[in-house]
Amino acid sequence: MTVWGENVHEREEEPVRALYPDGMHAAIAAGLTALLGERVSVRTATLDEPEHGLTDSVLAQTDVLTWWGHTAHDRVDDAVVDRVQAAVLGGVGLLALHSAHYSKIFQRLLGTSCSLRWRNDGERELVWTVDPGHPIAAGVPHPIVIDAHEMYGEHFDIPAPDELVFVSSFAGGEVFRGVCGFRRGAGRIFYFSPGDQDYPIYHHPDVRRVIANAALCAAQAPSAPRSVPDSPESPVGWFA
Amino acid sequence: MTVWGENVHEREEEPVRALYPDGMHAAIAAGLTALLGERVSVRTATLDEPEHGLTDSVLAQTDVLTWWGHTAHDRVDDAVVDRVQAAVLGGVGLLALHSAHYSKIFQRLLGTSCSLRWRNDGERELVWTVDPGHPIAAGVPHPIVIDAHEMYGEHFDIPAPDELVFVSSFAGGEVFRGVCGFRRGAGRIFYFSPGDQDYPIYHHPDVRRVIANAALCAAQAPSAPRSVPDSPESPVGWFA
Amino acid sequence: MTVWGENVHEREEEPVRALYPDGMHAAIAAGLTALLGERVSVRTATLDEPEHGLTDSVLAQTDVLTWWGHTAHDRVDDAVVDRVQAAVLGGVGLLALHSAHYSKIFQRLLGTSCSLRWRNDGERELVWTVDPGHPIAAGVPHPIVIDAHEMYGEHFDIPAPDELVFVSSFAGGEVFRGVCGFRRGAGRIFYFSPGDQDYPIYHHPDVRRVIANAALCAAQAPSAPRSVPDSPESPVGWFA
Amino acid sequence: MTVWGENVHEREEEPVRALYPDGMHAAIAAGLTALLGERVSVRTATLDEPEHGLTDSVLAQTDVLTWWGHTAHDRVDDAVVDRVQAAVLGGVGLLALHSAHYSKIFQRLLGTSCSLRWRNDGERELVWTVDPGHPIAAGVPHPIVIDAHEMYGEHFDIPAPDELVFVSSFAGGEVFRGVCGFRRGAGRIFYFSPGDQDYPIYHHPDVRRVIANAALCAAQAPSAPRSVPDSPESPVGWFA
Repeated sequence: MTVWGENVHEREEEPVRALYPDGMHAAIAAGLTALLGERVSVRTATLDEPEHGLTDSVLAQTDVLTWWGHTAHDRVDDAVVDRVQAAVLGGVGLLALHSAHYSKIFQRLLGTSCSLRWRNDGERELVWTVDPGHPIAAGVPHPIVIDAHEMYGEHFDIPAPDELVFVSSFAGGEVFRGVCGFRRGAGRIFYFSPGDQDYPIYHHPDVRRVIANAALCAAQAPSAPRSVPDSPESPVGWFA
Repeated sequence: MTVWGENVHEREEEPVRALYPDGMHAAIAAGLTALLGERVSVRTATLDEPEHGLTDSVLAQTDVLTWWGHTAHDRVDDAVVDRVQAAVLGGVGLLALHSAHYSKIFQRLLGTSCSLRWRNDGERELVWTVDPGHPIAAGVPHPIVIDAHEMYGEHFDIPAPDELVFVSSFAGGEVFRGVCGFRRGAGRIFYFSPGDQDYPIYHHPDVRRVIANAALCAAQAPSAPRSVPDSPESPVGWFA
Repeated sequence: MTVWGENVHEREEEPVRALYPDGMHAAIAAGLTALLGERVSVRTATLDEPEHGLTDSVLAQTDVLTWWGHTAHDRVDDAVVDRVQAAVLGGVGLLALHSAHYSKIFQRLLGTSCSLRWRNDGERELVWTVDPGHPIAAGVPHPIVIDAHEMYGEHFDIPAPDELVFVSSFAGGEVFRGVCGFRRGAGRIFYFSPGDQDYPIYHHPDVRRVIANAALCAAQAPSAPRSVPDSPESPVGWFA
Repeated sequence: MTVWGENVHEREEEPVRALYPDGMHAAIAAGLTALLGERVSVRTATLDEPEHGLTDSVLAQTDVLTWWGHTAHDRVDDAVVDRVQAAVLGGVGLLALHSAHYSKIFQRLLGTSCSLRWRNDGERELVWTVDPGHPIAAGVPHPIVIDAHEMYGEHFDIPAPDELVFVSSFAGGEVFRGVCGFRRGAGRIFYFSPGDQDYPIYHHPDVRRVIANAALCAAQAPSAPRSVPDSPESPVGWFA
């Protein structure tokens, strides 16, 4: 698993650095390691590394990629976006976290604007399970209570998800399809809305559990990444 | 269009009768007539009529059937449920309203328990559009505000809907997939959660609009109801 | 895993007995054991056993139930159907095989007639993968070639499946959504069309692979079967 | 309605010109006009016009856009693709015809490679209805028989469609999810596979009927195209 972080807020804003001294990516990676243990091998990559740390070699060794970005979406190189898109279509799982709704890779894979309503007032978010049989919901309370968080509200301009697992409500009354899944090519994509940089969300035990569940789930596609298929001319009986 | 009402609360409970002196079915029918006018012909039917007012002849003239029941689900005859199920599979639209989530016909068509959480505290419900391009959402505000209503909350044990149009939140924090659509056979089914008998919901202009939109939408299946298909043995080239 | 078989054709028809001397259920169970080995424990149950072999105790120990029936659908006791439905909604996986499209339990869970076209001419069936990233498709060729089989053709009157994995074509030109998945309650249901009693389909290595893959997939719901949920009244803040 | 055609094969290849002397777009437009009559106003636009004939003004007057392209996908200007994407997300319907599976706009909206298998042998295609209640299937035979056409076969690398209406089989045995629908933003998108330039497909009465049905269906989104939504900051109670 590769945990990708933009790693800008954490370096530039003291309150964020206080919450995540090693970066949000480090906290996410620590959660995965703590909950999944020896079942997985977790690495991190950030925007400032060459090729944003997402070389062909790294992607070839990646089963699941988590993505956190916000203020620097535009600084992600289109060539890297092409490469990640091809990897996902070939079977690599993708977890788009919080403000990654506006990342190039998420918009590219979904085809819509991915816009939403928002308000950063530190209000209570309740995350309700609407699909209790889904493996992402295993071992989490109903609802998950997040005492203070940024509001993300409908309308969320995404395609109808292939799987809707959690829906959030906020103290101000809004709702949000906060955890939903998409299949694109051979890859599984999950969007997971909790995780604003101003709150210690990635230290929340239930949030960590959902992310770990989603990572395992997204990794269940065939392990060997495939290349994106071309369109082969196929003479009659080619399969015989 | 045929508006079916159980018509028990309205006769037995004074507060409900005050809200709906002619029955909830009459209020629902009035809303359809007011908004759709000459485009539709609306009749009503109730539990106490012979065959609950849903004879073969009535169903044969029905494009859309709305269903409200609560305290007398068990008194609906299984033979009538069979008949309505066949009609829906053959193309008749069905609008299941509020406590119809536990009606025999809704459970029969969906195959799940259709259970949910509830609390009758007269709290504010906000109904949020999650699919603004859907014709059911045309002309309604975002959100619809219902000042006082019974809470229906997740988990709602239904199959993943084919179309999710509105999601409600309640003052107490719960969420509910309150307006969703299902296709079964040639018929379209919409579940619409607002409408407890203790509140004047069916006089609310936005609720009336959504019900009218849904009725039109459910009637868009081929107009001539078909019989439920059998399984014909089909010799090679039967279609030539 | 519990493999349920009607076990009528195999006892009454010599050609079927020649293909499946111990019954089709035994062949299906042997395939599961051969491919999944120690990961699973497989038992069988048949129509003629008390309670059709599907007692509360058996279901409580079952993660996945496979179902083959054809000529004796009507002899399945409604009380057993109720029990299996509750088990599936509570998380037990169900694999409905071939003519189980007309079984009481499949119709109950789906709510539609489940009718289809058919022709028993022993013609070639090709089973094409339309979702190559799905775990059910792992390790099977594209297409699976079945030299001789009964034709099942559209229109197949099922709800739009939550997952469509394979689509078959037949020498006579028909197509069929032959392998598809449904989620109902906490349970996963897969329909798998190959498997007429007149052909040695359950000895076909690719068919055995798909069934084994589907069984694993359907067992991924939470391992502890839950009871079907009721509708609890929930005072404000019940979750706090 | 605006019928867009690449209009290259028709000008450069004599056999195609013989089938479509005024271009394929003219034949498609003629079919729409013949079947829908005064209900619609149909215009055409082609690659060689300024801005490919798809100016802001034209799109603002368009409810449904049909798209046929093949050999010149790369010559479509990215700025026009951006504009059409925005229009679709804002509510304009899109019909992607045949080889438009590889058009920039279709790939942009779906996010996948949209690859498929193909073979141009002039073989029989049968188009089977799998959703007979869908308005696109109204008035067409089951199956539609196309005597000679190019084969398009699975795997078709698209997201799972929101609506699957027809599935084709070919004489060589392949299958294809040939008519399927997607919702993106407020817009409805239908892919319709028949229509290779080497065959008189757009003169086929059933094909014309399906295209007319799909055009009406895609136009049912709210008539006034909306702009693509941004992500508004929304103070508590903004909706009151």
